[in-house]
Amino acid sequence: MKLSDLGEFGFIERIRQAVAKAPGVMVGIGDDCAVLELPPGERLLTSTDLLIEDVHFRRAWADMHLLGRKSVSVNVSDIAAMGGTPRHLYLGLGIPTDLTVEDLDAFVAGFLAACADYGATLVGGDTCRSPGPLLISVTVEGTVSADELVCRSGARPGDALYVSGTLGDSALALRQLLAGESLEPELARRHHDPRARVELGRILASAHIPSAMIDVSDGLLADLGHLLESSAVGAEIDQTALPLSAPLRAAWIDDPERIELALSGGEDYELLFTVPPEREPALAALALSVTRIGTIVEGSAGLLMKNRSGDLRPAAPAGYNHFRQG
Amino acid sequence: MKLSDLGEFGFIERIRQAVAKAPGVMVGIGDDCAVLELPPGERLLTSTDLLIEDVHFRRAWADMHLLGRKSVSVNVSDIAAMGGTPRHLYLGLGIPTDLTVEDLDAFVAGFLAACADYGATLVGGDTCRSPGPLLISVTVEGTVSADELVCRSGARPGDALYVSGTLGDSALALRQLLAGESLEPELARRHHDPRARVELGRILASAHIPSAMIDVSDGLLADLGHLLESSAVGAEIDQTALPLSAPLRAAWIDDPERIELALSGGEDYELLFTVPPEREPALAALALSVTRIGTIVEGSAGLLMKNRSGDLRPAAPAGYNHFRQG
Repeated sequence: MKLSDLGEFGFIERIRQAVAKAPGVMVGIGDDCAVLELPPGERLLTSTDLLIEDVHFRRAWADMHLLGRKSVSVNVSDIAAMGGTPRHLYLGLGIPTDLTVEDLDAFVAGFLAACADYGATLVGGDTCRSPGPLLISVTVEGTVSADELVCRSGARPGDALYVSGTLGDSALALRQLLAGESLEPELARRHHDPRARVELGRILASAHIPSAMIDVSDGLLADLGHLLESSAVGAEIDQTALPLSAPLRAAWIDDPERIELALSGGEDYELLFTVPPEREPALAALALSVTRIGTIVEGSAGLLMKNRSGDLRPAAPAGYNHFRQG
Repeated sequence: MKLSDLGEFGFIERIRQAVAKAPGVMVGIGDDCAVLELPPGERLLTSTDLLIEDVHFRRAWADMHLLGRKSVSVNVSDIAAMGGTPRHLYLGLGIPTDLTVEDLDAFVAGFLAACADYGATLVGGDTCRSPGPLLISVTVEGTVSADELVCRSGARPGDALYVSGTLGDSALALRQLLAGESLEPELARRHHDPRARVELGRILASAHIPSAMIDVSDGLLADLGHLLESSAVGAEIDQTALPLSAPLRAAWIDDPERIELALSGGEDYELLFTVPPEREPALAALALSVTRIGTIVEGSAGLLMKNRSGDLRPAAPAGYNHFRQG
């Protein structure tokens, strides 16, 4: 079926009917605005992301269902990074004329499935045609109590630096895709269907463990750079302590340059956080899949990295800059 | 200057420094999410819009400052339509490589000026390059007390139907632009720099006058159609009662077909609302620039229009459908 047969309002009505009622949503899709009631005393958290065809994804590589899921996860990851609970999603779509209704249905089904995974509800959006690429604009609202909020700015010298999961897998998958290689299923999942660390963020925040937190979307060094800048501190990280999956470790043994995938690859959607010394026992008691990769130091020291040879050297943040030339 | 010299984070930092602190904004631009405190007891209103080059605007016709202003106004208009107060804006930008930093600065200055006009603050966003058109994604959050909230669904048979300002001016301006004609300043303003009716919406809602309300963005008939469908009612409107500006009235006298601009032209950003008979005296006492254009009737009657000859005929909603063919 072509979208021109269904029409803009027919398409919106299909989505509206697929969305379940949710507590706190007084008015969802179908009025000028969504009308929402937040849990008493909680703060509102909001983040927005653009995903553009041939910049953030390639339609040839993207299963539309997984692209729908990923559009939610990358946005919800920002709520996880503040220790919050995601609640409401908004979806803006600029739709090229060659996209079929079947493609759109698969995208929306993936989007709604991911919303359900995170306990959040699609409550609004906007649709129009695009004269060029497929455009996806996602906004998420969540909430957190004021005493559990974790910002980027709270790190202090002496805090330990932790990261969840493993780093560089999405970037390794992208590298293999670009080389035309087939992917191991778990590497493919890390790239095409990353999961936002909402549960981990809530566990950490509600136990008052992190002094600062950020999600790793632009690459470890770049996002650590943001956290250090916001907190006006420096850090020493140990390259040999970086948590690596078996495929990435194999690639690293093969070629020492491959460590760049873990340092600057991006799209990890893991949580990077700092822990004051007195909260480290509480963190250890939780037995989470997190790894200590370094220590926060005075701001004047900058960002230093100990490499495999044991040398401590300045490390330049080198994540993705959307406007870099060449 | 080229954007590649300034960099993504340089550009964001420039915007961050241009935004003033605002009450209720605990964390603005520069963390994973904005963190916000709503006025106690108020409901959250949220709406999102996409504006795409060559669909919603042409760069050749658009002054970048006014495009920044319009991006805010069209989005804030949805808050006005619920009787709310706009508070927080989010700006997503997909930036083509040929756009200069000067263009972007003008756009952002216009965006921030319009935010200030409406008493709202830019608190977040996302920027990336676009391989095709300029992409603008705007999300607005506002608030309203539960007893002042006005939805589309509250119209009842016997209610009077009102619209603010005049209709069709933006569409007439677009028609003249397409014909290569020069525009009268007020017509140009209606198209390039529409104002959201926030103050009017607040006056109406706080005086508990409207039973239902919507903003006219897709055209009078289309948006009236949405209101009637949500309220499960019909309406009779009087073509001769439509509020028309002098240029549109002149065009109509010239050619009876021109009434279509007022009925279906779109981008008016006026408020269309229904008033129960017992609230009409209170509305009259406020002496607002609003015009009674018809009456709500039973749903089975559908949408009827009395034309210049006095004939009452069914009127098909015919607003803008983004996926219509041809």
